[in-house]
Amino acid sequence: MIIDIHNHIVAGGELGAYQAGLIASRGFHGKGHHGVTEESIKRARWRGHSHSDVLKEVGTDWAFISPRPYTMMHSEKPEKIVHWYCEAVNDTIALQCKLEPGRFRGVGGLPQCAGVSPKNTFDELDRCVKDLGFVGIMINPDPGEGDWQTPAMGEEYWYPLYEKLVQYDIPALVHGASCRNHRESFHGHFITEESVAILSLLNSKVFEDFPKLKLIISHGGGSVPYQAGRWRSQLRGPNDTENFDERLKKLYFDTALYNVESLDLLFKIAGPERCLFGTERPGAGSKKDPRTGRWYDDVRPTIESISWLSAEQKAQIFQKNAEVVFSRFKAH
Amino acid sequence: MIIDIHNHIVAGGELGAYQAGLIASRGFHGKGHHGVTEESIKRARWRGHSHSDVLKEVGTDWAFISPRPYTMMHSEKPEKIVHWYCEAVNDTIALQCKLEPGRFRGVGGLPQCAGVSPKNTFDELDRCVKDLGFVGIMINPDPGEGDWQTPAMGEEYWYPLYEKLVQYDIPALVHGASCRNHRESFHGHFITEESVAILSLLNSKVFEDFPKLKLIISHGGGSVPYQAGRWRSQLRGPNDTENFDERLKKLYFDTALYNVESLDLLFKIAGPERCLFGTERPGAGSKKDPRTGRWYDDVRPTIESISWLSAEQKAQIFQKNAEVVFSRFKAH
Repeated sequence: MIIDIHNHIVAGGELGAYQAGLIASRGFHGKGHHGVTEESIKRARWRGHSHSDVLKEVGTDWAFISPRPYTMMHSEKPEKIVHWYCEAVNDTIALQCKLEPGRFRGVGGLPQCAGVSPKNTFDELDRCVKDLGFVGIMINPDPGEGDWQTPAMGEEYWYPLYEKLVQYDIPALVHGASCRNHRESFHGHFITEESVAILSLLNSKVFEDFPKLKLIISHGGGSVPYQAGRWRSQLRGPNDTENFDERLKKLYFDTALYNVESLDLLFKIAGPERCLFGTERPGAGSKKDPRTGRWYDDVRPTIESISWLSAEQKAQIFQKNAEVVFSRFKAH
Repeated sequence: MIIDIHNHIVAGGELGAYQAGLIASRGFHGKGHHGVTEESIKRARWRGHSHSDVLKEVGTDWAFISPRPYTMMHSEKPEKIVHWYCEAVNDTIALQCKLEPGRFRGVGGLPQCAGVSPKNTFDELDRCVKDLGFVGIMINPDPGEGDWQTPAMGEEYWYPLYEKLVQYDIPALVHGASCRNHRESFHGHFITEESVAILSLLNSKVFEDFPKLKLIISHGGGSVPYQAGRWRSQLRGPNDTENFDERLKKLYFDTALYNVESLDLLFKIAGPERCLFGTERPGAGSKKDPRTGRWYDDVRPTIESISWLSAEQKAQIFQKNAEVVFSRFKAH
């Protein structure tokens, strides 16, 4: 069974139109209705194909779908429009899951805003878990989207949210969103923010304080597995003993890397027992490699080609780790 | 012959005392003298050992020494104290080279300041090349040190400096400096900034406008080689053809990565013909790996252990690429 835990909603134009209206009005016209219906979702296409077909083409059985992160506008004001849009996106995800219950499960967006407590997201978090039946949530480590004002993820600012996640026993996919800073694209900012998040977490007491916290870092952990040597040397324990590897393995990682060398490195550094199949497909890697004619984000055959991984390790990556981490998935 | 192109000065306390005085007075007491002498350099030690001995221990024949980047205080004001300190550091490097002409060559720091043109560094750049006989210079992509205000390295802001480098035929080591932002350490910021620099350069016309520009990206290219798949997909040419790999190979990379998996990936993605041996030793990796008892930054045996590299490719990495890129090295 192939479970893709890093997958984003393919929404029709209704959601974008609703969002544009909220931004233009700054919420003056009220929340209104987002206009997404079962019919509009059935019509939604990615380059002419349904989401399901895009997944079937590469042999994916289950997709855990979250909001498309770069659209989440966490840095917009006033805060209420961030909430309204996030609710609309989660409604859309819930509808998609309802329409194809044998293909999709929901990973909810949180209406995060810079400068306020993560507690402000709890109403929507409760709704995601209790009403919508989602199996995970997504955390943006930088709700200011390039303003670098929010405390990094090792700081106590985040503790109320971690407490809530542990209570619900749901994992969080750590994933950057947009970037207002002119120096990098939102894609580049994903990698930056995921790296900042990991290093802050590894250098903190978070996993002592929340030993059951389940955080999955997107895009194979940003830069950190590649820069492992630097952190083995710099992030030492109190007696100057090495503990980077041990601490790194308190996190989980997805496999949204589109070349064999990097996947090989990820599995060697983080261990196959901490890696969950996730591709973003359709998304950043949905172009064809002109050298092979294959989709970059058709990651499964690439993982299968890594000969030192045992059949059991491959099963962990494709299925079993996801079943353990997303404990609410089995419950359905 | 083993040439380490990424090596920073081991300075005595005089330089730090001079810097502290400039910061405390904000330059009110004038430039004064930095107090570094041949005698003080001879006395300078890294954990009890001379710089030369630290290099000899791992078999390094030549070291190209630059300022220790995180101390360069590019974001301090007024601008004149940044200049004065930078000149003091370059003087120190020149003295070290003069004392051991068979071991060291200089890579000059530039007195970069956020919010002003890189032309303001030209007097010191001229001095480095013409008076001090340095073989390269170092560029900090983020002189604001975490304020993210300086245009990224693909922007025309940098063109006067690129023009100057090409005129002198000297390479630049691209290396972050300090970080005032509370979200990441200066070490983390190195990786962030080097990644921002690469992506901006690859997405720009810089190498069309300066085909002879020689830029060496520190720390194995930050996150970019590891995230190659993402950029192969996203940074496509005008006809949606793949050109990330071709563009990446317009840059050079050092080998300041302290584990075999990452070095292996770097050589596969960037190609051994674009990689120059560089370790920072003594620096971030100068701790012993408790599993092996070896220094992390003893990178040479790690590279030698990579069996798919030919003897010729290893010679390129350890020596020949440096001789080509640092064309002024041979001239001495």
